[in-house]
Amino acid sequence: MTPRLGFERLVIATHNAGKLREISSLLAPYGLECMSAGELGLPEPDETGTTFVENALIKARAAAEGLGLPALADDSGLSVDSLGGRPGVYTADWAQRQWFEGEPGRDWYMAMGKVEGMLQAIGPVVDRAAQFNCVLAIAWPDGQSAVYEGVVRGSLVWPPRGDRGFGYDPVFVAEGKHETFGEMEPDAKHAISHRAQAFAKLVAEQFPR
Amino acid sequence: MTPRLGFERLVIATHNAGKLREISSLLAPYGLECMSAGELGLPEPDETGTTFVENALIKARAAAEGLGLPALADDSGLSVDSLGGRPGVYTADWAQRQWFEGEPGRDWYMAMGKVEGMLQAIGPVVDRAAQFNCVLAIAWPDGQSAVYEGVVRGSLVWPPRGDRGFGYDPVFVAEGKHETFGEMEPDAKHAISHRAQAFAKLVAEQFPR
Repeated sequence: MTPRLGFERLVIATHNAGKLREISSLLAPYGLECMSAGELGLPEPDETGTTFVENALIKARAAAEGLGLPALADDSGLSVDSLGGRPGVYTADWAQRQWFEGEPGRDWYMAMGKVEGMLQAIGPVVDRAAQFNCVLAIAWPDGQSAVYEGVVRGSLVWPPRGDRGFGYDPVFVAEGKHETFGEMEPDAKHAISHRAQAFAKLVAEQFPR
Repeated sequence: MTPRLGFERLVIATHNAGKLREISSLLAPYGLECMSAGELGLPEPDETGTTFVENALIKARAAAEGLGLPALADDSGLSVDSLGGRPGVYTADWAQRQWFEGEPGRDWYMAMGKVEGMLQAIGPVVDRAAQFNCVLAIAWPDGQSAVYEGVVRGSLVWPPRGDRGFGYDPVFVAEGKHETFGEMEPDAKHAISHRAQAFAKLVAEQFPR
């Protein structure tokens, strides 16, 4: 049986203030006191996994063991079919940073360009299908864990469109949509996004009515 | 015999204030009154050429014919050996804009990423040699013209380094140098750059001592 969070303190296994803010606000209705591993002085573990699940668990477990509290971590990224799933777990590395705060910046445009260059190098007619994955992992100090995953399929456009969202949002159009994630209203994006789906599963299991 | 500019008005065949500023300051010592084709209300011609020389001449001739004054145009770009000379005359198009003003921005990082993605798609060991070309063309209303070209050879690095210069400067290291054009002091870059070389040739012929 999956362990459950009570009304207690939860460590968000991130060193990024923006990520802490986003996750804290998503969990605010459930009576949890959120703190970040970074603020608590815990060093960042190496993300040595080869999957989103592995990396999310590495981060959640490091924080849970280091602090003796349940910890939640997020690992997410873009996988492009024609590139064998790249950048995948290297999504943030390709942008030379771990997480993006605020407006889309030059690092992410560099990464979008790199993906596009690889696609165009394949040839003029190339399958542009891609997906965003988000894995949320919760680890408890006693070694238990739970994992929640969200996926949204879509395809890549070029050039980037829209200034909303972050990361690869300006080049990603979800299946059945016309706007990129960078053009969509936040509420519209959050209705279908990989992260929203993962959070919905987490909430359904961790905070049943 | 190459026609010569007198002490007269010269149209800079550009619609970009930054380019006008740079060229005007380079020509200031020679007593020319510089105006931009854009400011004078001339529409921008389509750059339909397949070489830097063709495109520089298209721009210079359109301005000289349209305004009845001698006109100077600049066409320049990065050519990567392993990409068959791309982006070449499409250098600015890949960045989705005609000219970059100020700090390196996201459009240029997108273009740098695209070049890098294409190189990496070739394989882990790839010839990273590249060159910057600059062509300055002067056209006179009577149909005469003169062309001055500068080239600097070098190689591409990844990730980008340095916030100076513009365009692809942060990924270009000139032969015999270690810093990128984005890291070099402006004076050091201008001692060897493609644009400086083209201007030196123009000045030597147009304004002999």
